[in-house]
Amino acid sequence: MDTFDKTALNRVRRLPERGRYDRETIYAIVDEGLICHVAFVDGDQPFVIPTIHGRLGDEIVLHGARASRLMKHIAAGNAVAIAVTLVDGLVLARSVFHSSMNYRSAVLFGHGRLIEEGAEKLAALEAVSEHLARGRWADARLPTPKELDATLVVGVPIDSASAKVRTGPPGDDEEDYALPIWAGVLPFQMQAQAPLADPRLREGIDAPDYVKHYVR
Amino acid sequence: MDTFDKTALNRVRRLPERGRYDRETIYAIVDEGLICHVAFVDGDQPFVIPTIHGRLGDEIVLHGARASRLMKHIAAGNAVAIAVTLVDGLVLARSVFHSSMNYRSAVLFGHGRLIEEGAEKLAALEAVSEHLARGRWADARLPTPKELDATLVVGVPIDSASAKVRTGPPGDDEEDYALPIWAGVLPFQMQAQAPLADPRLREGIDAPDYVKHYVR
Repeated sequence: MDTFDKTALNRVRRLPERGRYDRETIYAIVDEGLICHVAFVDGDQPFVIPTIHGRLGDEIVLHGARASRLMKHIAAGNAVAIAVTLVDGLVLARSVFHSSMNYRSAVLFGHGRLIEEGAEKLAALEAVSEHLARGRWADARLPTPKELDATLVVGVPIDSASAKVRTGPPGDDEEDYALPIWAGVLPFQMQAQAPLADPRLREGIDAPDYVKHYVR
Repeated sequence: MDTFDKTALNRVRRLPERGRYDRETIYAIVDEGLICHVAFVDGDQPFVIPTIHGRLGDEIVLHGARASRLMKHIAAGNAVAIAVTLVDGLVLARSVFHSSMNYRSAVLFGHGRLIEEGAEKLAALEAVSEHLARGRWADARLPTPKELDATLVVGVPIDSASAKVRTGPPGDDEEDYALPIWAGVLPFQMQAQAPLADPRLREGIDAPDYVKHYVR
């Protein structure tokens, strides 16, 4: 199945023409976003926490300390909503009313599960690491059994999801196009800067290509 | 009061040394972030939606269409959690275990209210507009009574909040500093690109300075 069913959970209500339900669009956003925001309910209270993530097929994987409230909550099988949002630009219409943003956002719904088995746990950690910096896993010092034990890894199989995408120039009211007001798009880009070597870096170690030429 | 009380709601549980409770730190993050993520509960189900925001003193202001579920939910006085997150860089430690991100994140808690009175509603819309592009409000065509009527504006007075901040180089285990692995920080920056004029822009209108020299 290449698209998610449109249900009460994931239906894009406002501006439904911006809604997308296909995995290709949704997962491209999930994979490009550096971080996600995880929402959960404790009692009646909503919480939202930013965290790093990885994706393995139809599952989002997350990790944290064994003592983390978020991780324990997800590991216990509770419902979560996960948002990944990419801001592409300001849309400056002539009217305030039609001003907007260009963006690509995905919201995913599922219930958590604990990932405990050794090989699966390591694969999930590798997915998170490679999500942030592809190539790093092969270079870095991998987790020891003690470190693995201190880490809680959870998965959220994606039950439902949708994306919302806006692109292109502003859309003003027809009579406003005659106004002497500048209009257009101010694009934004998340850009990697020059890497800063650790002050304690051993001499003669160059930054690897996946750091020097980082792209998302 | 310049700091928020530390309570069960806002206490930074993991890595408490990264926690901040002062308004100055928290509001600087809120004001720099282009967007926020709003979490709310409908039934038992958590939802999270990205949206643009403004801040007026100790209140977050948001707007949307009158039909928006999120806006109606907030206007009805329900509890929300709002996150604003700035990603400053990848922290590449020699070990996967100590790898991290440099970030500044704020999470705010409150209950919504409808902002209906004309002058207050307009001030809130101005705050959102100026939050995105300072100077735009004075240039753009302001909302008509009909547009105002189609827009729902809500406020979330901030009852509780905290921030979490990580900066600086990786912190590896002492014995790992001898490893022949590059370590350091890859800084990220959200950068405005060259403005793209609307294809239907009238001739002879230059992009204003707040667009050409956009800074956050």
